[in-house]
Amino acid sequence: MSEQRGALVIIGGAEDKRGNMTILREFVRLAGGTHARIVVMTVATELPLEVGADYIDVFEKIGVEDVRTFDVSAREAADRDSACRAIEKATGVFFTGGEQLRITTLLGGTQVDSALHTAHERGVVLAGTSAGASMMSSTMIVEGVGDTNPRVGIVHMAPGMEFIDGIVIDQHFAQRGRLGRLLSAVAQYPHHLGLGIDEDTAVIVRNTEFEVIGRGAVSVVDAGSLTFSNLGDLQNNDALALCGVKLHILPAGYQFSLRERKPNLERLTRSGNE
Amino acid sequence: MSEQRGALVIIGGAEDKRGNMTILREFVRLAGGTHARIVVMTVATELPLEVGADYIDVFEKIGVEDVRTFDVSAREAADRDSACRAIEKATGVFFTGGEQLRITTLLGGTQVDSALHTAHERGVVLAGTSAGASMMSSTMIVEGVGDTNPRVGIVHMAPGMEFIDGIVIDQHFAQRGRLGRLLSAVAQYPHHLGLGIDEDTAVIVRNTEFEVIGRGAVSVVDAGSLTFSNLGDLQNNDALALCGVKLHILPAGYQFSLRERKPNLERLTRSGNE
Repeated sequence: MSEQRGALVIIGGAEDKRGNMTILREFVRLAGGTHARIVVMTVATELPLEVGADYIDVFEKIGVEDVRTFDVSAREAADRDSACRAIEKATGVFFTGGEQLRITTLLGGTQVDSALHTAHERGVVLAGTSAGASMMSSTMIVEGVGDTNPRVGIVHMAPGMEFIDGIVIDQHFAQRGRLGRLLSAVAQYPHHLGLGIDEDTAVIVRNTEFEVIGRGAVSVVDAGSLTFSNLGDLQNNDALALCGVKLHILPAGYQFSLRERKPNLERLTRSGNE
Repeated sequence: MSEQRGALVIIGGAEDKRGNMTILREFVRLAGGTHARIVVMTVATELPLEVGADYIDVFEKIGVEDVRTFDVSAREAADRDSACRAIEKATGVFFTGGEQLRITTLLGGTQVDSALHTAHERGVVLAGTSAGASMMSSTMIVEGVGDTNPRVGIVHMAPGMEFIDGIVIDQHFAQRGRLGRLLSAVAQYPHHLGLGIDEDTAVIVRNTEFEVIGRGAVSVVDAGSLTFSNLGDLQNNDALALCGVKLHILPAGYQFSLRERKPNLERLTRSGNE
């Protein structure tokens, strides 16, 4: 089954919606092109009407005929058969930004949650931007302080929607100076690879590999190579010492093997720039 | 001679001047305590009177009896004997913030430049904050874009004052999201270690080792371990791909060997926190 899983399109926020729309076009292409059936999930935002209308405009502009929004403001709505049928018919599901905890607390364990996982298993493409990106993994960053060195307690984590294991995602990465908080997150469990995704930049995950698209870069923070960490001895707000972290900066066209924890340089598809 | 060189106190900007003043007190201690003779060099700033008066207040509050400022707004002034005599009598010289190019263009090659190097060789402590930190090394970052992924041309470099070799310094590091620009700098010559120094944080360099003091951390970016870089093929503003960069995050109390390019964990002097 897992060989037929749908791709994940994990976007670092602020993706272009007015110009070339590289990332959103790629999502549409993966979901079937103009024949795609797209559901825009506005669960994360408190402005579902505005945000939903904006994405409907964009996807229609790209040429998708069948776009609908799905909002949930109470868990009951996520247990309705009609909601599940919309997911079952979709070829692509797009999660907007907002607050990642709204997604997990409103959808987690509902019929829609199951329908999303079933859909993904049979090939439906799942995309998410900003909060919709963070929630993709099994453990997610809920919130944290930017523009700081790594410190204990500056990053608040919670279970995510579990569409992918073994990574922790941060978004708006370079733009909001989030190296410190991503390091604080992965230091807690260095098996997790940290993916810091810049704005208007995305990773397309297929099985255990991803490729980068968009304007910025993806910073892969691999704390598996740590030679020293003082995390065990510290209290809240104490400064972390981390020695021997491995860092890869991957712009558009570069690929990475999550299983081997290294870039796939032999399979470079583009110049690395668009 | 080089065994008797003075320490360098390289500060990431915005050091505490009102509270414990950990960093400025340590500079004073290294320069001889209350018997120190300190020259505050305001060459970098266009507000030498205000900035100079501020530091005179601070150093007097710490208990230093002999503090004077030295400003240069034209190169002629840096060739006067009186200027050199002030440096010759000092036990510590402190460079304020401002613009690092003012320091190198106003002092480079003058009698004061020679006097500073001679003084450093015979044990005088040199300190600098912000612009005064950047200029310490042989190659310095003049300016660059923050909050971005590494790109070609986003960082402008120039010769520094050459008090230390083999490193490139960036300041206000976590606070201004400068990982991208420091990576862009060291990628050009991966032999250089990148030192990203946070605000109210400093490295104390003695010979080929340094120790961290202050509130934040120092990020050591070692591109010597690069397994791949696309730098050769790119044009201005193209995104850099960098694979296999090594990263160390070192808060207060941690030491690093510049010669061995690794932390000295066996010589940890404090808990790593203050």
